[in-house]
Amino acid sequence: MKAPAPAVVRAAVIGATGYAGGELLTLLARHPHASVTCLMSSGRDGKKSFPIEQSHARLRGLFTPLCEPLDVEQVLASGAQVVFLATPHETSHDIVPRLLDGGARIVDLSAAFRIRDAAVFGHWYGFAHTAADALAEAVYGIPEYAASAIAKARLVANPGCYPTSVILALTPFLKAGWLDVECGIVADSKSGVTGAGRKPSDKLHFPEVNENLRAYGVFHHRHVPEMLQELSLPYQNFIFTPHLLPITRGILTTIYARLTQPREVAEVEELLRAFYADAPLVRVFPAGSLPEIQGVATTQFADIGFALDVPNRRLILVSAIDNLGKGAAGQAVQNMNVMFGFPQTTGLI
Amino acid sequence: MKAPAPAVVRAAVIGATGYAGGELLTLLARHPHASVTCLMSSGRDGKKSFPIEQSHARLRGLFTPLCEPLDVEQVLASGAQVVFLATPHETSHDIVPRLLDGGARIVDLSAAFRIRDAAVFGHWYGFAHTAADALAEAVYGIPEYAASAIAKARLVANPGCYPTSVILALTPFLKAGWLDVECGIVADSKSGVTGAGRKPSDKLHFPEVNENLRAYGVFHHRHVPEMLQELSLPYQNFIFTPHLLPITRGILTTIYARLTQPREVAEVEELLRAFYADAPLVRVFPAGSLPEIQGVATTQFADIGFALDVPNRRLILVSAIDNLGKGAAGQAVQNMNVMFGFPQTTGLI
Amino acid sequence: MKAPAPAVVRAAVIGATGYAGGELLTLLARHPHASVTCLMSSGRDGKKSFPIEQSHARLRGLFTPLCEPLDVEQVLASGAQVVFLATPHETSHDIVPRLLDGGARIVDLSAAFRIRDAAVFGHWYGFAHTAADALAEAVYGIPEYAASAIAKARLVANPGCYPTSVILALTPFLKAGWLDVECGIVADSKSGVTGAGRKPSDKLHFPEVNENLRAYGVFHHRHVPEMLQELSLPYQNFIFTPHLLPITRGILTTIYARLTQPREVAEVEELLRAFYADAPLVRVFPAGSLPEIQGVATTQFADIGFALDVPNRRLILVSAIDNLGKGAAGQAVQNMNVMFGFPQTTGLI
Amino acid sequence: MKAPAPAVVRAAVIGATGYAGGELLTLLARHPHASVTCLMSSGRDGKKSFPIEQSHARLRGLFTPLCEPLDVEQVLASGAQVVFLATPHETSHDIVPRLLDGGARIVDLSAAFRIRDAAVFGHWYGFAHTAADALAEAVYGIPEYAASAIAKARLVANPGCYPTSVILALTPFLKAGWLDVECGIVADSKSGVTGAGRKPSDKLHFPEVNENLRAYGVFHHRHVPEMLQELSLPYQNFIFTPHLLPITRGILTTIYARLTQPREVAEVEELLRAFYADAPLVRVFPAGSLPEIQGVATTQFADIGFALDVPNRRLILVSAIDNLGKGAAGQAVQNMNVMFGFPQTTGLI
Repeated sequence: MKAPAPAVVRAAVIGATGYAGGELLTLLARHPHASVTCLMSSGRDGKKSFPIEQSHARLRGLFTPLCEPLDVEQVLASGAQVVFLATPHETSHDIVPRLLDGGARIVDLSAAFRIRDAAVFGHWYGFAHTAADALAEAVYGIPEYAASAIAKARLVANPGCYPTSVILALTPFLKAGWLDVECGIVADSKSGVTGAGRKPSDKLHFPEVNENLRAYGVFHHRHVPEMLQELSLPYQNFIFTPHLLPITRGILTTIYARLTQPREVAEVEELLRAFYADAPLVRVFPAGSLPEIQGVATTQFADIGFALDVPNRRLILVSAIDNLGKGAAGQAVQNMNVMFGFPQTTGLI
Repeated sequence: MKAPAPAVVRAAVIGATGYAGGELLTLLARHPHASVTCLMSSGRDGKKSFPIEQSHARLRGLFTPLCEPLDVEQVLASGAQVVFLATPHETSHDIVPRLLDGGARIVDLSAAFRIRDAAVFGHWYGFAHTAADALAEAVYGIPEYAASAIAKARLVANPGCYPTSVILALTPFLKAGWLDVECGIVADSKSGVTGAGRKPSDKLHFPEVNENLRAYGVFHHRHVPEMLQELSLPYQNFIFTPHLLPITRGILTTIYARLTQPREVAEVEELLRAFYADAPLVRVFPAGSLPEIQGVATTQFADIGFALDVPNRRLILVSAIDNLGKGAAGQAVQNMNVMFGFPQTTGLI
Repeated sequence: MKAPAPAVVRAAVIGATGYAGGELLTLLARHPHASVTCLMSSGRDGKKSFPIEQSHARLRGLFTPLCEPLDVEQVLASGAQVVFLATPHETSHDIVPRLLDGGARIVDLSAAFRIRDAAVFGHWYGFAHTAADALAEAVYGIPEYAASAIAKARLVANPGCYPTSVILALTPFLKAGWLDVECGIVADSKSGVTGAGRKPSDKLHFPEVNENLRAYGVFHHRHVPEMLQELSLPYQNFIFTPHLLPITRGILTTIYARLTQPREVAEVEELLRAFYADAPLVRVFPAGSLPEIQGVATTQFADIGFALDVPNRRLILVSAIDNLGKGAAGQAVQNMNVMFGFPQTTGLI
Repeated sequence: MKAPAPAVVRAAVIGATGYAGGELLTLLARHPHASVTCLMSSGRDGKKSFPIEQSHARLRGLFTPLCEPLDVEQVLASGAQVVFLATPHETSHDIVPRLLDGGARIVDLSAAFRIRDAAVFGHWYGFAHTAADALAEAVYGIPEYAASAIAKARLVANPGCYPTSVILALTPFLKAGWLDVECGIVADSKSGVTGAGRKPSDKLHFPEVNENLRAYGVFHHRHVPEMLQELSLPYQNFIFTPHLLPITRGILTTIYARLTQPREVAEVEELLRAFYADAPLVRVFPAGSLPEIQGVATTQFADIGFALDVPNRRLILVSAIDNLGKGAAGQAVQNMNVMFGFPQTTGLI
């Protein structure tokens, strides 16, 4: 029998100064059953404690505790039942084992524990995994198909933003065996800039992004291995091309695939609807309309639609998420909801 | 023997109030060998004559003649040697025969004469072609491969913006027979809003575009037939998906194709360089770098780059143009330069 | 003795298809003590009933009732305790008396009942007030200083977006008599485009707003009379200049005034803090920092800061709100909270 | 007697990698009588020579010489007749004396020589002027009223972007003595981000600027002293407040002043028209219309308009420039044109 959900979950947010950290705080401030006991920056900038509104003007007045430098003991001492990590991968490698030892449950928004094979991680990320022992109990946190594992998990690896947009669109079709994988699948993604983080750089300087669009990471973006893993696709049959949009938040992914056999439009729509019948944060679009970024920005929904060239069996899928919402903080809180027995949408509408 | 270029070409611009018309005027004001004798609006709004800065604030002070309602006789009487049409397709159908009869040479920026087969035009545009006789002498105006025909043409059909971005990237490979056409070619394009014209609509209202991205015209955009025609591709082997970017001008197209046989990176670059060796407005990027919209916005260049997955023969092409530049007015003036014997880049750098 | 707040307030939203209407629905969907019984469009477009996601993609899945054409009887029959009007001024004039007669309480987001003097309304709006009888019981709904009247009101005139940003900044100083009114006060405002509504027009077409800024309504914007009324200022001593920003939502107002006598920085900050000590949705900034639009966009807060040139007694006030939040729908729900006995921030954090 | 203009002026651009440097190169590539002999970066980043398209994608293919590290001897050896400095103030202090000694004429886009009084410079810029000897021959380069001095100058201090927008609007009125200076003049400016330079920072990171607006430098922006100097205004009678717009280029300045005596609208327009009768790059707007950024972006024009509250003698001026055009590189080339005897507009339309 499932334990009843607690009245309030005590949460810590590590990496509170970044964009995902700020979004987590926004959502937790609004969540009816969460209380933030502890805010910390990832500890790389050596700052003293400071009011969080110095990092996120919109949070002014919402949090009493100051943002402190990273200190694992202090996190545990705060009584946090769940710890959100919006930290660099290396920091997550470093502190996850200690947090688990201390009894905390973790939702890690970094990529540190998304790839089950430490060698694959090392290949794509260019440095060795230093906490491979913890990989065994990490659950890749897509609540739409992994809710039962997430409910019991001590460590949830919160999916990347691009992978969320790709995996949610393709999974129903791949699980049903409807796609001609040999023919190749292309995912052409376009993302807002918060997905690239808060560290200033030449490439993310306002005038270099505004009125511009560029492809990047072609054939070798770090989000590829989690997509291959979750979709059980070989590298040579899948292309992922991200583009940087001149917007703050949101991802639109356009996916090109071929069906193994002819299908009617209504069959495709029904496959999606059936797969997501119990997924309150996935919205399937009726044939003839397609998701847009505007429909999901600042929400926690994933919107999925499609177009089908029936005679030629060509399928186009379009998915839209907010990279900070369903692509990061929203999904993290959704995972927390599942872990602690709340309805998935609690605090997320 | 080629006649020498005239000192000054007298030009008329019909459809001066739209975005392409305004851009034409900007370029012609700067052109050292062009003189605008006549500005006209397409005549659908019934306005009287007015200073062109009422439509285009940036043109204030640059043109003495007022913008007049459309009047073919007046165009011919103005002594225009070349008439630029930035008019609705139907208007071009209506006036092109009369202008040709009057002795003018024409660069038509509408789609009226781009499709050689009037039935194909009717199928995609939803109304019958009413000037099919003139189709026989229309030249599809890509100066990079059709310069000799353009030089002699009386009627140049200036290519669409999306087609320009797709055709320039794919032509070298298709002409060389390097692509596995059966496997399918995908062109995923992203365009700024001026490509959609100046008529206000729900979908182009600022808050509906800003911080948004959407796909549209999936499987049936009107620019498809000119791409199929110029690339000699069958419909079932080519997908074109346009997306509306929250920017004013520029198109980035990402193209996915498979090579028929293995090629090295250097071979691909060399194919492009050789094909465009004499094309001063096409810039081929070295392997390892890719075009961005920012590099072409407000210029008349087309930038083309690529990435190659050698072992799997997967080719990604990226092309960038300004939809109002090389995608419309810039190419139109380039065509004028070719028609009147000027260097292609005159007035366009 | 105050009646206890009800468990759930039944609300109707008229004008649901516009930007303010959509924002109201977003907030009411999240409000723990509100239930939307009835969504209606203002009835001018003659549409049949339709799912609200056809107007607001982000609302997909959140509301079961269809959006219906305006029908006052149906609103009353739905049992709505509060009716939000996000309707044209004329529509509000038309239906408010009937709704009041039917027993509903109203929060009107139009300007129909903001100006106490019907003649002044007619002068600035260019048409006669047709429901002047209802003016007597209208309360101008700034909860920060009119909460007790709002609590009892049957008809709350929800303030304009610009006026909210100006009035909240100036009121503490004018009430304290600190400003040299004779010297003149200038409010230079900059607003996102949703403040101009959802009707497409030449001026609000994406490429005409993007990468642009323009002043408009100089010396005669319709929001001036409510500012003069609420601030008790004569026309000749107050200038209001709005500018259209290329952003979706948010207003920043920069106000220039002169103090009647020398004040220290700390005194100014203290005046603001004291005035807003009990106002949970107004955030006073410490000297040395200033509000930005980003800090308030998609929130319901008003942020107020200042800079002072002590020797010359020159005061600059900067206020920031979301024009759809504290400037429209957020303030409307705040008014509803006050009317029905909920804490002001309920559902608004 | 004036010497005839040379066929070609040899120009060097120092600071070629910044935004103003890139814009200078764009304009010089198009200028019919200029030739760029030498491109240099300011020498602070220690890079080797590199193709300029690595800094400015749009310049690909336009310049043969590589961009070199700063080397004054090499500049002089290149035979440059005019040297454009788009360098840090300190670099200009350092190299201007050596360039003058070497016989070059200089247009300096930094603030190094804009303020006639070295002590005032030190006060506002926070470091001492190290080339005060050269100040005596520096000419503040507004060609509209200083053309004869510019024509003879060896050192032109190219005005700041904000000052250009303010000075051009106010000068006609201040020279005519029409403004009540005691009453105070307010200039509320809004600028695109390229005005803040190309160095990445937290504040200029794309998501911190996009969908945002903020005031900065309130009461103490570094551009204030040049405005006070050129307008002969005391600090206490002038307020300048800059705001950072989420656009790439352009400044709109809204100015508030009071007339000393009543004037008709036509008088105000006539004053402006008369003052700028011979200024081909200043466009005076007729009463009833106002400049916008869109009308000047990517142009070299300054647009000036006004609104007048006749009974209350309140004057609002609105000026618009491109901060990289008339506010920097365009004005620099205009100054070069004046220095070398070309028409002011050569290469600038």
